[in-house]
Parts: sequence; structure tokens; C-alpha cells
Amino acid sequence: MRRFVASKSSRNYLISCFQRSLSSSQSRFLTSTTPLTSDSTMSSNTKTPSVTVDNINPKVLKCEYAVRGEIVTQAQRLQQELKEKPGSHPFDEILYCNIGNPQSLGQQPITFFREVLALCDHPTILDKSETQGLFSADSIERAWKILDHIPGRATGAYSHSQGIKGLRDEIASGIAARDGFPADPNDIFLTDGASPAVHMMMQLLIRSENDGIFCPIPQYPLYSASIALHGGTLVPYYLNEATGWGMEVSELKKQLEAAQSKGITVRALVVINPGNPTGQVLAEDNQREIVEFCKKENLVLLADEVYQENVYVPEKKFHSFKKVARSMGYGEEDIPLVSFQSVSKGYYGECGKRGGYMEVTGFSADVREQIYKVASVNLCSNISGQILASLVMNPPKVGDESYDSYLAEKDGILSSLARRAKTLEDALNSLEGVTCNKAEGAMYLFPRIHLPKKAIEAAEATKAAPDAFYARRLLEATGIVVVPGSGFGQVPGTWHFRCTILPQEDKIPAIVSRLTAFHQAFLAEYHD
Amino acid sequence: MRRFVASKSSRNYLISCFQRSLSSSQSRFLTSTTPLTSDSTMSSNTKTPSVTVDNINPKVLKCEYAVRGEIVTQAQRLQQELKEKPGSHPFDEILYCNIGNPQSLGQQPITFFREVLALCDHPTILDKSETQGLFSADSIERAWKILDHIPGRATGAYSHSQGIKGLRDEIASGIAARDGFPADPNDIFLTDGASPAVHMMMQLLIRSENDGIFCPIPQYPLYSASIALHGGTLVPYYLNEATGWGMEVSELKKQLEAAQSKGITVRALVVINPGNPTGQVLAEDNQREIVEFCKKENLVLLADEVYQENVYVPEKKFHSFKKVARSMGYGEEDIPLVSFQSVSKGYYGECGKRGGYMEVTGFSADVREQIYKVASVNLCSNISGQILASLVMNPPKVGDESYDSYLAEKDGILSSLARRAKTLEDALNSLEGVTCNKAEGAMYLFPRIHLPKKAIEAAEATKAAPDAFYARRLLEATGIVVVPGSGFGQVPGTWHFRCTILPQEDKIPAIVSRLTAFHQAFLAEYHD
Repeated sequence: MRRFVASKSSRNYLISCFQRSLSSSQSRFLTSTTPLTSDSTMSSNTKTPSVTVDNINPKVLKCEYAVRGEIVTQAQRLQQELKEKPGSHPFDEILYCNIGNPQSLGQQPITFFREVLALCDHPTILDKSETQGLFSADSIERAWKILDHIPGRATGAYSHSQGIKGLRDEIASGIAARDGFPADPNDIFLTDGASPAVHMMMQLLIRSENDGIFCPIPQYPLYSASIALHGGTLVPYYLNEATGWGMEVSELKKQLEAAQSKGITVRALVVINPGNPTGQVLAEDNQREIVEFCKKENLVLLADEVYQENVYVPEKKFHSFKKVARSMGYGEEDIPLVSFQSVSKGYYGECGKRGGYMEVTGFSADVREQIYKVASVNLCSNISGQILASLVMNPPKVGDESYDSYLAEKDGILSSLARRAKTLEDALNSLEGVTCNKAEGAMYLFPRIHLPKKAIEAAEATKAAPDAFYARRLLEATGIVVVPGSGFGQVPGTWHFRCTILPQEDKIPAIVSRLTAFHQAFLAEYHD
Repeated sequence: MRRFVASKSSRNYLISCFQRSLSSSQSRFLTSTTPLTSDSTMSSNTKTPSVTVDNINPKVLKCEYAVRGEIVTQAQRLQQELKEKPGSHPFDEILYCNIGNPQSLGQQPITFFREVLALCDHPTILDKSETQGLFSADSIERAWKILDHIPGRATGAYSHSQGIKGLRDEIASGIAARDGFPADPNDIFLTDGASPAVHMMMQLLIRSENDGIFCPIPQYPLYSASIALHGGTLVPYYLNEATGWGMEVSELKKQLEAAQSKGITVRALVVINPGNPTGQVLAEDNQREIVEFCKKENLVLLADEVYQENVYVPEKKFHSFKKVARSMGYGEEDIPLVSFQSVSKGYYGECGKRGGYMEVTGFSADVREQIYKVASVNLCSNISGQILASLVMNPPKVGDESYDSYLAEKDGILSSLARRAKTLEDALNSLEGVTCNKAEGAMYLFPRIHLPKKAIEAAEATKAAPDAFYARRLLEATGIVVVPGSGFGQVPGTWHFRCTILPQEDKIPAIVSRLTAFHQAFLAEYHD
């Protein structure tokens, strides 16, 4: 596991270099205009080696993704054991709290969205009388409208590489309605979830390990993984746990200077709002400071806004970075800004559909062309995901037949998530040696665990990070899967884990009591 | 456009190096254990530049994908003009023959597949009485079976990163039934179409520009694009047009020696069977030679088998490379072999669903773990695509309610494709100065066009490759979109284009007459 190791003082920061073991030999350039003849001398020592971990791309080796790391592999093993031998562990099911995957824990999809998807998958039933008994009138109408956006109504055809134009129009309208500022469908790139969009931007911006990408610490490990795969350098800025995971411009400045003094060209700043794994919702003032900082330092602002619908506290509200920038008077030409959105999160939680988009603003036409070209190599994102992205940005409206049931489903999910966040936060804060900031938004709690010295030593004896050791013991005792904080990065010497707020409410009391019992036993076992 | 330029003799081959303009400076390695302090000196000249084509990743700049290149952009522009001003061009529609996208040209999806997809998208209708009037009994049964494969029947949840286990079981059974040799569901990685699978293997194998990947020339430009994006070197082997795009081991040997003499470590061999853009179906004997060559030279065999259902001539049959290797007595440990399959091709042509898989055999457990890790960074492929991949590998069987209609739909599509291939091939061969090999399989014809000297000079005057010039003129005169051969690579001094066989049969006479009239006028205009 890649860790963010630094000196003991949390004031000393580091630049993580993912490239240490890459060959430093000079690049060799073959002359393609020199014809190679068949009588070239073959040297016997150039024989191709077979594929081993020692000769694969070292960037792949360096990449880590803790959300589906070792702890999850172990959980899958335990689940298989439980299936084969019920009663073989002190719990009867594995509770996957490692990943924001709501429907895997029982959340039901929004009916209207699924009706429209089913009708678009099998449009020949649209005209049949039975269909009106099975589907709402507005889902039928919406399916027709979507089909009319698609040349030949062919939902099985590759679309434009940015996605179906009519769906991008709907998404742009949804963004404009959300922000109060216009959005251009030509700025939208529909993607299979947000992850490929993040990869595309990293691929575009990173030339070598001398290019840095600013990431919050703790961060969602897609970013560290993508930066590693593309051979860049993650430049960390630490969120301040003491102020509810606050983002401080003084910290950004310090880290930027530090990176620059090492010869790193910082090209972009990643901000995750609402925060993952940290759950904070940025205040608008704070967002303005960040925009100002990116503008001044000429950084691309990469805004991960996939949790935009997940805000649980009345005193906070989601504002897109584009809205904030535009409200400051910054236009298209002032700041390159990419907003990532996904159908996997929000109240919809349609992870398996792999829908999402990025809104790309502030780049020159010729750079945009390069982004389009990279998108075109994979032809297009999946059409069901494209349709779903248009639906979440343009859900039923007042007066539509589905509106009431849609609203009830949506509010039911969001209010339940808010209750679950609060219950779990309270439970965690009641544990000895555990402090947990509020989940204002997103789907996670990221408690800090103050581990006894003996537990840390026991972890070190097994060559595990102390929080990974804790998470493993938790899994073995309770079947609850969480992700160790070391997978996200944290201030050195502090330990955390990420736990989703997604288990259904009827399961939460049992989770809390199992967690509490485990924690007490763990502390008792390793008491100093 | 990246071209495969070499000396005039077709016997002189080249190694295309995609890396010429990459910086050759020594890599610098930051010491991550050295804390950076806030008083590091900031040098003013390290200020981040804004994003321009001159400072993006040069690998992105070098990547080209002709199938959606300039000619398609121009076609989209003409389409828009036709919409806004009907009658503004000498044709009333754009015919996209550039891409294997059957449903965009009117091919209807297989009913059973779409029924199952719709039911899995909206499972709450499965129990309703109206559903039995709308859907076949076996589609309902299959949907239940698929839902039972998914924990909690949650089609909206992220799956295992290799795909839903029960679906992989069905795919493995389908492969075993096809080949007569066992297949392991743990070897299957479900992906969003075949393209991401190809990228994953390139990412794994390519460490630097000194790593080469053998590709046929002409090749499907996903390969050249992916190799460029991952910073490797495309090592070409030329297919022999004179023998129906035959693959010759003597050519492989010669090119391997040439690459090795330049210090290139050739790591893998890409073979596309049936061929894209060339349409040949490899004979089993030829496949054995290729397996033997890869075995001897320790190459990973990357078998693009996405057209496995598209064979149009009775004298040829598709054999998977795994079947061929196993029938030669080579087991798992003898040869690393990856087979790519997609739901976009075949008789189903479900491009927009982005389903596909790779079957990965012959790699060590620790390398497999690395492939899994990279797959896990993107969580999973879309579930509808996963379901569809299981359906195409396990379609209705004799006795199932849908079987007869399924078979009629499948045979109707495949026999029509065979007729279209023959008609277009004959039409092309009847043109002066055009020779066209048979499309034994896949979805394309790749005619050679012998262009008059004056046409070549006219092209050069516009800085276009002569076949790109021809394709552009064809588009402007007829609305027919084809891809210039230079986008796939070809023997230097020869010119081709790729044209799909996908337009519906009732449109083919008009296409043939427009193409013929254009070609005659073009030759008359540039007559020597």
C-alpha cells in the first residue's frame, strides 16, 4: 500500500514521488525512416522475457486503490467461507462499508429512472397497450423524447464520442438551472462513471514525474492511482481535521512553494466537494478562495462534484465551482475548470450503470480537440449510462405523473442517509479514543482512532499499518468492512478508517453494537 | 494523421517510433522522506504555464484514431448543413461507412437480448401479469436467473471488478462449448467494450518506448492509438494483400529481428481474426504457426476475436487462438494468451451497450493480481454490458420459446451481411484501378485504389495523403464516409480505404451507383 509517510511533525509535508523505480536511462529514438533489412544482425541476448511482476510497467506496480484493496479481498474470502460453512465465523454476513455502493446494501433505485431505462432498452413495447399498465405516462413520454434524440432511435449504436447531443442538451440545461449560469452542451463529455473522466484529464496534463497534481489529503484514492498510472507526482495539501476538514489557502501556498522548489510544475488542483472520505461541504467563501488561488497560480481546477446531491446539514449548501467562479465574474477564458459528476452517487446511487460526465470549460479549442480525440479512441460511453446522466440532471417536474412518487423516493433516501450519518457519527464519537467529524455530505465518516502503543507495535510486527491492522481485526470479529485511513493518506502518526453511512437503518443498531463491542475488546487487548 | 511512412520498396519495413518528441532528460527522483519546509525558496521561473497543445502530454498529441478522425468531423459538419439547409449538397443523407456501427444504419437488435436487458433494468415488473403479454417466457426466466446471480438482485450496484461471478460462469461455459476446451470464470475480465481491455494490456506490458508491440499492418487504429498513449513502440508486420491479407511467419521473423537489432523488446503480438480492416479469416494451420512463433519467441498473444461470429464464406471457420493452442497441446503455463470479445460486433452489433470481456490465460498469479488491481481502480464495467456479454455467449437454445425467432433474426442478419459483402466487393472490383480482396469475415472491405499521378499531386498540394484526399472528395460528392487506408497503415506507395458492409440492402444499389459515378468522374478529372 502506498503511504504518505513523512516526518513526525504534521507541519512538515512531503511530495510523494511515484516514479522512484522508473528507469532513468536516456530515451532512445529510433529513426523510422531508416529501413530495416532482413539481414539485420540478431543478438541472442535481446530475447523477450516472459511477463513477470519484475518486468511489467512499474507505474502499474506503484498504483494502489485501497477501496478495493487487500481488506476487500479478505472479505470476499470470508463471504465464500460463510457460504460454504455457515457458522464458521462469529457473524453471518459481510457488511461492505468500504465503498459507496448504496444498492448493494439494499437501497432501491428510483422507479422513474428505471422505467425510462427499460423502455429505451426495448422500445418495441412502447406502442403496446400492456405497457401503459406497467409504466408511468411520463416515463413513456420521456423514453420517446430520448429516442427522438438518437439518430434512427438506435440505442444500440455508438454515439458521438462526447455522448448523444440531445442528452447533452438536457444535462447542460440541468446545470444551468442548478447554477443560474449558462452551460454549453459542447462542454459536456459523457463517460462510464466519473473515473474515466478523471483518467482522461490526468492523461492530458501529466507529461512526466515533474508534473504535479495537487490533491487533498485525505483523498479518494482514484486520484493517487490515476496520477501513479500516468507517471505524475501527487502534491498533497492537508485538510485540517481540527476545523472539520477545512481547506486552507495558506496550506496550499506552502505546498505549492515546496513543490516548485523541487522543480515540480503543479498543473492542476483536485478538490472533492462534498468531501471523500472526509464528508465536509465547503463554504462558498472557501470556494472563492480556492478559485482565486487557482486563477492566480494558473492551475486547472478539477472539481470532483459527484456528491452534489448528498448534503445532510441545513446550514450547508452545495455550490458548484463553476457557479462560484462565474459569480466572481470569472468567465470561460479566465480559468480552466473541469467538473466531474456521476450517476453512482446522489440519492440515485446507480453505481452499476456507469454513467457520468465532465463539464470542461476554459480550455482552448485545440486542447479541447485533443480531449475529444482521446474520448474518440474508446468510441463512446455506454448509452444507458448516458440516458441516466440526463435523467439525474433532469428528473420529473411538478405536474408530471411520477413527480410525487419520485420526490417521496428521493426524500426518503436522503433523509434516511442524514439519520444514518448522525447515528453512526454519534456512535463513533462515543467510543473511547475515537473522534469523528460530522458527515455534512457525501457518504462517509472518517473517524480518527487513537490506538494504544501496544496495538501499533502489534501491527508493526505483522508489517501492517496500524489502521489496516485495526480494520482487519474489525472484519475478522464483526464482518464489517471499512477502509484503513492509510489508503487515503493522513497526517503521519494519525490513524483513521473510512466507513460508509450506507447500511440500511434497521441494520445500524447491530452494527453499532458489534463495532462497540469489538472496539472495547481491542482496547482491552492492547491496553498500555 | 500518423502515417506508416517508409521507403518506396515494400520490402523495406520500419519500426514506428511514437516517442520522438518526448523529453530525453534524465528522470529526477524526489526524496519523499525529506520534509519540505515552508521557507523553501520559491523561484519565480517555475510558475505553472497554462494548458496549451505545446504543454500537454506529448503521447496524447501523437495518438491518432482515424475511424473518428477529420473525415468524420467533416461528415458531421455536412450533416448539420443538410439539416439546416436541405438541398445544399448533392446528396440528402450522410452514409457512415467509416465505422462498424450496425444499428446506426438500421440493423435491429436481437429481441431476446433486449427483453432480458429491459427486465433486468426494471425488475419490479417481473411479477406483473402484463409482463407476460409483453415479454417471452424465456426472457422472463433468464432475467430471474441473472438477478439471482447478483447479490441482492441489485443491478444498480458496482459488481466484482472482473464482473458478476455468475455471468462470468455463463461466459466461461459459452467459451468451453465453442472451443471444446475448458474455460475458467476467474480468467474473465468484463469490460466496457473491448477497447478498455486492450488499453489494460498495453498499460501492463509497456514500460517505455523500448517495449514493442507487434501489430498487423493494416491494423485497427485502436492498437496504434493505445500503444502511443502508453508510450510504447508499434512494431509492424505487413499482411500480404496479394494472398488475401495472409499472415506470414517469415515476415514476423524478419520484423522481430529488425526490432531486436534496434534494441526493442517485443513483448506481445496482436492478431485480429477475422481481420479489421482487412476482413480475412485465418486458416487453422496459419493460426498454429502464429501460436508456435509466440511460444518460441516468448510473446504474449493478444487475440482480437471480436468478429468471431462474422464469417461469411463456407470454406472458412472461426477458431479461437485458445482452442488452437490447446489443440496443439499447449496448456495454461505454455503461452500467455488474451482473447478479446465484444458485444458490439457479431450479429448482435450492440455497440452502444459497451459490453465485452477479455479471457486472460497463461499469466502468473501475481501478474493477474496486478491486472485485477488496474481493473479495480475503475470499479467495474457497466452491468447492462455485462449481462449482454453473458447473453451473446449463452443465447437461446433449441426448445426455448424465443429460439426460433432468435435464430431467424440472427440468420437474417448474417446472411444479409454476407450478401452485402459480396455485392460491394463485386462493385468495387468492377471499378477501374480498384482491386478488393474478399471480406471473408468481420464487417469491412479494404479496397486498394490505384490513383493517377495527377490525383496524388493534387493531394500533396493540399498536404493530404492521397487516399485521404480521395475519401474527402468521395464524401463531398456522395455523402459516403469511408476511412482512408493511411489511418490503418499500408505498404508505402499503396492507397486504400476501409468501407463497412453495413448499409441496409435496399440502400446498396444507390451506394454502388453513386460510388461508381464518383470514381469515374474522379479518374476523368485526374487522368494522366
